Amino acid sequence: MALSKNEIKFVQSLRLKKFRQKYDNFIAEGEKIAAESLQQSLFRAVRIYAVPEWLSTHPALTGLGPTPPVHEVSETELGKISGLSTPNKVLLVLRPPADAPGLELLPGELALFLDDLQDPGNLGAILRIADWFGIARVFCSPGSVDVFNPKVVQGSMGAFLRVQTAEAPLAELRRANPDAAVMGALLDGANIFESDPPRAGILIIGNESKGISPEAQGLLTHRITIPKGAGGGAESLNAAVAAGILVAFIHRV
Amino acid sequence: MALSKNEIKFVQSLRLKKFRQKYDNFIAEGEKIAAESLQQSLFRAVRIYAVPEWLSTHPALTGLGPTPPVHEVSETELGKISGLSTPNKVLLVLRPPADAPGLELLPGELALFLDDLQDPGNLGAILRIADWFGIARVFCSPGSVDVFNPKVVQGSMGAFLRVQTAEAPLAELRRANPDAAVMGALLDGANIFESDPPRAGILIIGNESKGISPEAQGLLTHRITIPKGAGGGAESLNAAVAAGILVAFIHRV
Repeated sequence: MALSKNEIKFVQSLRLKKFRQKYDNFIAEGEKIAAESLQQSLFRAVRIYAVPEWLSTHPALTGLGPTPPVHEVSETELGKISGLSTPNKVLLVLRPPADAPGLELLPGELALFLDDLQDPGNLGAILRIADWFGIARVFCSPGSVDVFNPKVVQGSMGAFLRVQTAEAPLAELRRANPDAAVMGALLDGANIFESDPPRAGILIIGNESKGISPEAQGLLTHRITIPKGAGGGAESLNAAVAAGILVAFIHRV
Repeated sequence: MALSKNEIKFVQSLRLKKFRQKYDNFIAEGEKIAAESLQQSLFRAVRIYAVPEWLSTHPALTGLGPTPPVHEVSETELGKISGLSTPNKVLLVLRPPADAPGLELLPGELALFLDDLQDPGNLGAILRIADWFGIARVFCSPGSVDVFNPKVVQGSMGAFLRVQTAEAPLAELRRANPDAAVMGALLDGANIFESDPPRAGILIIGNESKGISPEAQGLLTHRITIPKGAGGGAESLNAAVAAGILVAFIHRV
């Protein structure tokens, strides 16, 4: 059965934050993310649009508890609702978990706080970093890019399914963890390879052009830096690259 | 004087590799990159398109040796030739240096080799990494994304002006440096935090989806890895993030 105009409009509308919030739904695309999404129970698939080839290899779909409405679509129809330049067989509409993670860190836990991070590619890459290093929670300032932006979801390569995310102002996170170390990279911070930054606490990742906000700087207990090489000319590193270096080193084992 | 149709077509054509190669020209945009481009002499500005406001603050432009043709354009005209969603006052057409860097490494030098890296955002971020850590040369396999792709140039934040790049097959780079360490990250490599990888040599960064090619794997002298955290679920890190972690740690001081 062909997709109705309303159905197409509904899925397309989820590219915008306004409609993701209104419906509490977002889009995840492609065979790999679909496979991972259907193997967990935190995010519920409320709709599945797939080409016949994909459906024929997923006969067990109807066994998935309350069956999500499965729509067989043609490649052309998938192209209409897909946000990818090359649609990949299946598109899911997912509902995020109802419960946001709590703000209190466990003993020894390292969590990230994103201070108005703007670029969806960077957020996707940062969720992959968290997923790789076993960081369970990533907190985002209210001004950060939406975690369920399709570019974040796709760039995270499925990490959004395993890393818990929540929007929270830094001050609240701080109040919930008054004794936690709060680390952030600044040009005049202590060399991470020479100082011995704590392995647990909150690591702040700053905005792409403005870095860590003055408000967040005021809450830092550890000002650290990634040392520049001799003759290094760049003013900064890409935010996700810097996050990766900091997490890898704080987490070193 | 308004831009001619041919002039607009010429600048737009430089978004494609074919025409960048034909004319040996490429585009760099925005105030910051323009300022840095005009302060060095390796890349020659063959055309400058700028809005009156920018030109009024650059009276000395005519003193720049053989004066590049400077075109005053309106915001609307700049929008026509710009590849940015928000054009930023000035667009340069640059000519790369005639001489490619040599393949022989200096004693103690660390160079990067990109093994069919595809994403322009990743290449831009990797040039920033090289620039930050003082890596002078980045070699690209013939199958890698073009260094002068506009997304690479803009993503590099000016690093393309300071980091030398050249296309070269790995086998040739190897022949020029028969004794150099050749390092690459593989899932079964030695933990970079426990092993002590050499600080000089060639570090290979693999393709986004396929990793390091079998051919390049055959040339590795040091198989290294970024250790996953307990409970880490991601299959891989973003290529630029992985490059940043490897370079930061190999370069640690």
